[in-house]
Amino acid sequence: MIGRRLPSVGAGDRVTGRVQYADDLRFPGMLHAKILRSPHPHARIQGIRTERALALAGVHAVITGSDMPNRYGILPWTQDEYPLAVDKVRYVGDAVAAVAAVTERIAAEAARFIEVEWEVLPFVLEPEAALAPGAIRIHDDKEGNLTKHVHLEFGDVESELAASDIVVDGDYHFEGTTHAALEPHCAIGKWETDGTLTVISTTQVPHYLHRELSRVLEIPTDRVRVIQPPLGGAFGGKSEPFDLEFCAAKLSMITGRPVKILYTREEVFYAHRGRHPMRMSYRLGATKDGRLTGCDARVVADGGAYSSFGLVTTYYSGQLVTAPLALRAYRFDSKRVYTNKPACGPKRGHGSVQPRFAFEVTLDKLATSLNIDPIDLRRRNLLAVGDRTINGFLLRSNGFAECLDRVETTSGWREKHRRLPRGQGIGMAGSFYISGTNYPIYPNNMPQSAVQIKADRSGRVTVFSGASEIGQGVNTMLAMVAAEELGVELAAIRVVTGDTDLTPVDLGAYSSRVTMMAGNACRKAAQSVAERVRTAMARRWETSLQEVVLADGRATCAGRTDRDVSMAEAFALTEAELGSLGGIGHYHSPSDGHGSYRGATIGASPSYSFTAQVAQVRVDLETGMPTVEKIWIAHDCGKALNPTIVEGQIEGSAYMGFAEALFEAQLFHDSGLHKGPSLLDYKIPTALDCPDLAALIVEAGDSEGPYGAKEVGEGPLHPSIPAIANAIHDATGIRIDSLPFSAARILRLLRENAVSH
Amino acid sequence: MIGRRLPSVGAGDRVTGRVQYADDLRFPGMLHAKILRSPHPHARIQGIRTERALALAGVHAVITGSDMPNRYGILPWTQDEYPLAVDKVRYVGDAVAAVAAVTERIAAEAARFIEVEWEVLPFVLEPEAALAPGAIRIHDDKEGNLTKHVHLEFGDVESELAASDIVVDGDYHFEGTTHAALEPHCAIGKWETDGTLTVISTTQVPHYLHRELSRVLEIPTDRVRVIQPPLGGAFGGKSEPFDLEFCAAKLSMITGRPVKILYTREEVFYAHRGRHPMRMSYRLGATKDGRLTGCDARVVADGGAYSSFGLVTTYYSGQLVTAPLALRAYRFDSKRVYTNKPACGPKRGHGSVQPRFAFEVTLDKLATSLNIDPIDLRRRNLLAVGDRTINGFLLRSNGFAECLDRVETTSGWREKHRRLPRGQGIGMAGSFYISGTNYPIYPNNMPQSAVQIKADRSGRVTVFSGASEIGQGVNTMLAMVAAEELGVELAAIRVVTGDTDLTPVDLGAYSSRVTMMAGNACRKAAQSVAERVRTAMARRWETSLQEVVLADGRATCAGRTDRDVSMAEAFALTEAELGSLGGIGHYHSPSDGHGSYRGATIGASPSYSFTAQVAQVRVDLETGMPTVEKIWIAHDCGKALNPTIVEGQIEGSAYMGFAEALFEAQLFHDSGLHKGPSLLDYKIPTALDCPDLAALIVEAGDSEGPYGAKEVGEGPLHPSIPAIANAIHDATGIRIDSLPFSAARILRLLRENAVSH
Repeated sequence: MIGRRLPSVGAGDRVTGRVQYADDLRFPGMLHAKILRSPHPHARIQGIRTERALALAGVHAVITGSDMPNRYGILPWTQDEYPLAVDKVRYVGDAVAAVAAVTERIAAEAARFIEVEWEVLPFVLEPEAALAPGAIRIHDDKEGNLTKHVHLEFGDVESELAASDIVVDGDYHFEGTTHAALEPHCAIGKWETDGTLTVISTTQVPHYLHRELSRVLEIPTDRVRVIQPPLGGAFGGKSEPFDLEFCAAKLSMITGRPVKILYTREEVFYAHRGRHPMRMSYRLGATKDGRLTGCDARVVADGGAYSSFGLVTTYYSGQLVTAPLALRAYRFDSKRVYTNKPACGPKRGHGSVQPRFAFEVTLDKLATSLNIDPIDLRRRNLLAVGDRTINGFLLRSNGFAECLDRVETTSGWREKHRRLPRGQGIGMAGSFYISGTNYPIYPNNMPQSAVQIKADRSGRVTVFSGASEIGQGVNTMLAMVAAEELGVELAAIRVVTGDTDLTPVDLGAYSSRVTMMAGNACRKAAQSVAERVRTAMARRWETSLQEVVLADGRATCAGRTDRDVSMAEAFALTEAELGSLGGIGHYHSPSDGHGSYRGATIGASPSYSFTAQVAQVRVDLETGMPTVEKIWIAHDCGKALNPTIVEGQIEGSAYMGFAEALFEAQLFHDSGLHKGPSLLDYKIPTALDCPDLAALIVEAGDSEGPYGAKEVGEGPLHPSIPAIANAIHDATGIRIDSLPFSAARILRLLRENAVSH
Repeated sequence: MIGRRLPSVGAGDRVTGRVQYADDLRFPGMLHAKILRSPHPHARIQGIRTERALALAGVHAVITGSDMPNRYGILPWTQDEYPLAVDKVRYVGDAVAAVAAVTERIAAEAARFIEVEWEVLPFVLEPEAALAPGAIRIHDDKEGNLTKHVHLEFGDVESELAASDIVVDGDYHFEGTTHAALEPHCAIGKWETDGTLTVISTTQVPHYLHRELSRVLEIPTDRVRVIQPPLGGAFGGKSEPFDLEFCAAKLSMITGRPVKILYTREEVFYAHRGRHPMRMSYRLGATKDGRLTGCDARVVADGGAYSSFGLVTTYYSGQLVTAPLALRAYRFDSKRVYTNKPACGPKRGHGSVQPRFAFEVTLDKLATSLNIDPIDLRRRNLLAVGDRTINGFLLRSNGFAECLDRVETTSGWREKHRRLPRGQGIGMAGSFYISGTNYPIYPNNMPQSAVQIKADRSGRVTVFSGASEIGQGVNTMLAMVAAEELGVELAAIRVVTGDTDLTPVDLGAYSSRVTMMAGNACRKAAQSVAERVRTAMARRWETSLQEVVLADGRATCAGRTDRDVSMAEAFALTEAELGSLGGIGHYHSPSDGHGSYRGATIGASPSYSFTAQVAQVRVDLETGMPTVEKIWIAHDCGKALNPTIVEGQIEGSAYMGFAEALFEAQLFHDSGLHKGPSLLDYKIPTALDCPDLAALIVEAGDSEGPYGAKEVGEGPLHPSIPAIANAIHDATGIRIDSLPFSAARILRLLRENAVSH
């Protein structure tokens, strides 16, 4: 089963339109709600009058900040949001009040009747201005507007740089981007007749939402249920609680009816939590033969109005560039700053996509300066299996060298690099990424994933997992793992995810943790059931447990053709022999002694994926218009449990990196207003805009991963952007240090370059 | 938790109208289907032309018998039905073809366009005629039209009767009745994109339906899922597969769309499977001091056109009168006969309601003849705990003596019996019933019930059970058992039942088996989880496992007030200490050596409930109109897990017995046409027609039952009918031997009585 190219579980429903997304769900008596949002980037609420809205026919309830006075936030240390603004608003789009009515239209109409008395405050949109002495304060308790400041040094960076043969540097800017999942956020609150709360939501993290709903609404956790229907994309943009979930829940508690809130596309841009804009400065030293010495990084991230995952982002922006290449010394100083804009958060490749761009372009500069082929430069600085990175991450496996070989060969690198005609170029970059984090979002020592399995005489196996299917293939992975261990066919397995009542706790779909953690938990659960079946069959067949083989839907005895029953029969015999069949398995990542490294626990993972990419571009020298012709992506995922899905993840990641490189930018007017909160204005490439993508699977099996598997959903995004930047350099000689790589920017650089030469 | 009066789980949704019954469910693209039914009681199908129906706009598919040529039936030995008639029809209403269309109306219209070429055959409506030599054959392979003939003798009946001081006898007729659940049968077939079949159905036995769908439609059991939504009543009338489930499934397989079939009320009467009409002859002997000697019973049951559970009915009609009173010898001869009418099957109190009527009226005659008080007569013939009945049933508990005491005292029996003015009377009867059957419907040695439990750090506990909530309170019972063992509050528990994918196998809701079997399984599953929690807490608190108390939502340590955490915390600590929390428990009834008694396995149960009833009536001597004024029902349920629900079951059973006694009759014209297949014509009493019901709980704890509990859902029905008959005798002197006890019948008997005296 493992390693086979099988269709995704649930794909049939997706492509035939049978899937019921959150907004497809309706319940008897259901109300619809709308959230009134701030027109000001920063203002104090002097008063709110809701009487006129409440008086409108069809309106059932109006709530404001005082109805939910508990602050929330995905990380327990930085809870700085209210479901609805209590004291003041901090960006254009901040939630102020919510109205539940019999139709969405009436709710929207009524929201306009809510009268808010504003005290408009000065605001700040840029992190540098927010950090400046005397800047206005966005959060009263946060002087200097700092969400988080991390300063860590491993080794002696200044000595290493001083002793280097060469030091290159650069300043970089990564523009903010957002997830642009096709499905807008949607939540349905249902206050049940038994005094429990059900929230159906487009969330990636039902468990965390469960906890926050309980805390904010002051309902015990054992009275809250979160259901996640199939999602129409997420990419990190649904990884934390949002105003709509609290509002739908509270309005249902007040009205006693189900209440649905569906964001408009405009609201999705306000909810945001997308990629942080970052300003980054890098200094990187090397010996003249290309051995890296010290690296000094400074990062300032524009966090927007609230913390979101920003604390983690601040660590990741420094921690996650310490592989795949060995460094002798490394220091980073990273600040995340509040501004009066929608909050930034985790987007696919969280935290290290921006610094990876800066680091890999810096490396390319180094290669140019040393006149060493960029691939060879990387080969001279490889880390080995069993090594720890400078910041202490243990590498249990490492397929980076093979990734380099694969992209070098398949792209025709040797024939192309520095040899293509002007206007055409090829570039490369490498990266690594985590397979889940060892560090849960709230401190605890409980399993990070658990899976419960039920099997019975019908031959049907049901897998209950709290992991979240967000299109990445979790359900398929769980089904394949259970099928592998239990020997049943895939269609005999039903996977149940996304319901906190039905499934054991799983921390959710973020940080590329699911295959590693839920996969291991599923394997253990399935193995415990399989062992009972083998025991029963061995007893019946008077043989040893080891001789019983469960595979291809049958239980057989090695070397005995007369001992061959269907798995349904084997389960039935086991039920008769040993009782009903069920089991639970869990996973907790190893600690690996990371605690001994300062701060390094944030970023540490059970295992790490590796990627190398080569991008080939063409630049129109008249207009600056760049065209990415092809990207070769070699990704070490440890073991491709399902190569088709792995390739899909590789392609999807590279596509998203390409999109950010060339197209995307979440921009604001000086007034604080979003420049274009719509998919008409916010450009994402269509299939026609997309380069040819060559996904190359590398399998450096990892001892901690299930069957050796590591992550694939985020890692392959990272090198896309610097590979394209480096290819543009190869094509044109310009060094592009800011995103996106628009024709206008390239043309300006081409002209500057022409002048300076 | 056990023994508390708690509201039913799910009651809030019921009374607020939130429950989504099967017919409330709709799916994108769903079609509606109608079944064409036979207008003839017996006819051969010469040909069917479906072209005109198929040509109608909006029609998607038409199926006939040849599309599903496999026979089905709830019992593997008597599968004699086709989903749609293949060769011939056997009653007015037998299914012939089915049409799926975009609306129910179009489907009904199209069904009329199906052209059937009939060869009308002679038919037989009465069992005596069907048994007569030379009778037409309803099933070609069943000579003599016998479904089943059981003849069993325990002891030497003729010797005992010959040696008796007195032998009384009687011939009795019990009219057929039907369940009249408010919700008609409904099924939705969904052929899924992954090649599996889901059937949502108003069934009481998802597991059996699962197996029959698989076998008839030739889909492996591991590709079939049966979901049972909340039911609007069942009472045994939804205990087996019906034509609509196969048709909805098959039409979905053909069209690729969900297909719903909802019976009309008329079709519910054709589906039927209600109480068998029975003709019964009893001879019962006794010594002059009232010791029962031998009993000889002959039963002929009118089975209708198909077998249904008839094989079991044939056994039960004899096996289940052997308690609560001891017999020295017992013989019964029971025949179930095919006739050209809707098939009879299991209705609440299955199999023994009719002979119980005959037996208890015969006993009353004996008491009159011997001039012994009927209650005292029963006291002289009690069985003791540990006794076996004459047919070998082991009585682990017996509260019948207490039941007699309770109804005697509370009804004022001593002051009333034979002492009320003419036209007023009081009568009594007793009975016993099974708490589930030791004998599954298909032969196997697997658990009869299993329950899987999941608990987690939220404090939430989920109970997965294959048992079927049909309004009898299964979900409440399971929640209370889990809450009792785990110490959580009821609202922290979610019960999942009625979904073969989500739950372990349970044989379903029939034969009053659920509290005994699923209750025990749930208790074991919860105990296994509780033990892990106690282990973890004992470790943490450095105490012994026995000192850890889980109750009232908290884990505490005996005698240590400083050791007190919520169950959510206790679960969290256990997760951290021992891993994620889940467990499975199962139940298999003891064999008790019943196999050594001929045929007695059918009818044997882990334990038996006992009931005594007193009914007080008033008969209008001018019109014959009977009025039941009050019924006192003392029922030994072992332990009332939730006295409110137990009382509800006692009242509901007695109500149903009262209804059959006075009102109900499923009757047919000589043409074979049902006399009134509607709730306008088929009379059931409303709340206003209902006597005052005094439910008296007796708790003779049973060692096999969970917390001592035994059945309560069916047993209390049995004595209602004979108690009313005996009360009518007390009031009027007439012996009424046929049902229903209508004013016309009573008046005729009054007049005959007057003439004969």
